Amino acid sequence: MSQIEIVPDGTVTSPKGFTAGATFAGIKKPGEDVLDLSMIYSQEPCNAAAVFTTNKIKSAAVVVNLQHFQKHNRVFAVIANSGCANSSTGKQGLKDAVETTELVAKALGIEADEVAVASTGVIGVPLPMDAMRKGVQQIILTAAGGHDFERAIMTTDTKPKEIAVKVNFEGGSFMIGGVAKGSGMIHPNMATMLCFITTDAAVSVDYLNQSLREAVAISFNMISVDGDTSPSDTVLLMANGQAKNKTITDSSMLSNIFQRALNQVCVHLAKSVARDGEGATKLIEVRVKGAKNITEARRAVRTIVSSNLVKSAVYGCDPNWGRVTAALGRSEVDIIETKLDVIMAGIFTLKDGTPVNFDKKTATDALKTNEVVIEVDLHLGPAEATAWGCDLTEQYVVINSQYTT
Amino acid sequence: MSQIEIVPDGTVTSPKGFTAGATFAGIKKPGEDVLDLSMIYSQEPCNAAAVFTTNKIKSAAVVVNLQHFQKHNRVFAVIANSGCANSSTGKQGLKDAVETTELVAKALGIEADEVAVASTGVIGVPLPMDAMRKGVQQIILTAAGGHDFERAIMTTDTKPKEIAVKVNFEGGSFMIGGVAKGSGMIHPNMATMLCFITTDAAVSVDYLNQSLREAVAISFNMISVDGDTSPSDTVLLMANGQAKNKTITDSSMLSNIFQRALNQVCVHLAKSVARDGEGATKLIEVRVKGAKNITEARRAVRTIVSSNLVKSAVYGCDPNWGRVTAALGRSEVDIIETKLDVIMAGIFTLKDGTPVNFDKKTATDALKTNEVVIEVDLHLGPAEATAWGCDLTEQYVVINSQYTT
Repeated sequence: MSQIEIVPDGTVTSPKGFTAGATFAGIKKPGEDVLDLSMIYSQEPCNAAAVFTTNKIKSAAVVVNLQHFQKHNRVFAVIANSGCANSSTGKQGLKDAVETTELVAKALGIEADEVAVASTGVIGVPLPMDAMRKGVQQIILTAAGGHDFERAIMTTDTKPKEIAVKVNFEGGSFMIGGVAKGSGMIHPNMATMLCFITTDAAVSVDYLNQSLREAVAISFNMISVDGDTSPSDTVLLMANGQAKNKTITDSSMLSNIFQRALNQVCVHLAKSVARDGEGATKLIEVRVKGAKNITEARRAVRTIVSSNLVKSAVYGCDPNWGRVTAALGRSEVDIIETKLDVIMAGIFTLKDGTPVNFDKKTATDALKTNEVVIEVDLHLGPAEATAWGCDLTEQYVVINSQYTT
Repeated sequence: MSQIEIVPDGTVTSPKGFTAGATFAGIKKPGEDVLDLSMIYSQEPCNAAAVFTTNKIKSAAVVVNLQHFQKHNRVFAVIANSGCANSSTGKQGLKDAVETTELVAKALGIEADEVAVASTGVIGVPLPMDAMRKGVQQIILTAAGGHDFERAIMTTDTKPKEIAVKVNFEGGSFMIGGVAKGSGMIHPNMATMLCFITTDAAVSVDYLNQSLREAVAISFNMISVDGDTSPSDTVLLMANGQAKNKTITDSSMLSNIFQRALNQVCVHLAKSVARDGEGATKLIEVRVKGAKNITEARRAVRTIVSSNLVKSAVYGCDPNWGRVTAALGRSEVDIIETKLDVIMAGIFTLKDGTPVNFDKKTATDALKTNEVVIEVDLHLGPAEATAWGCDLTEQYVVINSQYTT
């Protein structure tokens, strides 16, 4: 019987054969002498799959990674910096991203196209290559380096986001570890979200791609409104095979448990990103059921969870369910108003399209938690979806009106 | 030679034959003893055209108006209340909206289906019909009542929004007057926008419809992201023919000047709504040119002007143009990054896709105005569009986290 357990203090270096490290290279502003350049390295080559931003403006790092993936799906190392997104930086930006992969390749004795690169921070500012050149030399890779890697990719994040799970199956075990950054998720479209996932499982490239897409669809894509992505958004999954299991493919016995474990890692990280939204005080979970199909269910939850007015109401512990129905109404999903139920923090506020005369004080008190669940039942079909976001606070505005200056 | 002039102190009762009035009926909370119920009346029947919300959740008032317009395009009177949206109120809400039109019809000696009805305020709360019944009797209609009507439809609006223009043509003149309310336009989707436009011009129903749709497309629809509307959004145009001109149709000499005057009224009101966005300190005007077609141009401006991060940057006087390109990138319009220009408050920040080394201090100072213009040139085609919004401030969150409780 297969089973998934959470690894205490787990991170991307929990799976066998991965090391990581970080340094302060001086890419962030003077005074912010925190880690800003970091690497993950696998001693054996990894099969890799990745999902990149759908934004038409793509950062130099994303462009370079896409070129590598067109050649092959092999990755040995990741280099990531914070403090500069190297996006909208023209031809120089592309040259700098390529040079970055070359620096890492030289340091590790691998090929430049086996290095994945990621940058997060301010847009439109050139990558300080002197700092990068020096910084790459400074990084010391260790099996305990996952936590440092995580901290080095943080920007406005207030909390690290990492996890590892261990899958025990008859005859062996493997691990999946993941880290993520991203905290501008109150309006998720332009907050760079980076996520790196490692596993020592042996997995075919095809199945790696398929399982990553499925996991992202129910996790990272559910903390983002449709098509809203930053120029740098990246989720990268690397499998180095060091668990020595029989390679997992679509038809393997282990494919189901691998998918479940990967889903768990991605949902955990996605929720962590939503919870740490800029200025946020609460995690909001929206569940829509009874939708005609999965596309409509997902569109509905995303529209509700990304509504400024719903977010503001949750912040104010205000059971203003009319904002939920109004957001739903503009989400372009099929609705029969007389069938609609809305439950906020466990309290029925709308039943069969008619307002419930609930006690306001009880509802307000129920909203005074740091995880608020909003449930909508369309009563039209079998499909359901869940999405996560956070409340909108004054602090969001303070952070975002003073970011670059 | 035709010409358009602004009428000093103009409003919906500026055109001949229109009267209006308002009262405090007690629909708003006790202590808010301000005007909350109001009427417009034309002594002659009006040809009418209207644009209603595309939200699938429609307020009772919108449903009733749609039923009236299915029968005919004749309107004598408008009844509007603030303090209660009568939306998501089930069957009772519909009954109450119908009774409201009957109350007005009885008081004025007209038919109930010749009364347009509008409600704005909190969603999900029943309309207090005792207050409505008494209030309708209290309203005194006068030719000077337009300003009172305007004030009575305000909710979180801080400034009245009204205008009238006079069109002088060879052989006569006519006027168009308009009032609007709406101030949650920082995230425009769920802030009820009501607009009532009167004219004493004689205009055919067909041309009234056509010209209203054209005017709305470049005004109210350009302060809203695509498909984002409140359950109550209404723009109503009434023409009573008292200017005694030859009825304007699509092929009339006067159709062009009528359209221009109507556009002017709608753009003025739309900008007023954007400028008075909840908590706003600045009007933002975004202009996109060089788009492949008008659909793409409009989609691009709307995406940029409704981006929380762009709005926050403008509030902070932060020339963070990367947020403009990132919003553009997710708007799903065609872009060639190396052709892209971005100008913020008159200062080139991106030219041919390459960052311009502008002086930060100069740019920050240029943003310290109460009207900020952001220009984007895609250099791909002939189409252009303009949209308006406002900055995002802490005060928006304060207002919207404390609205119903």
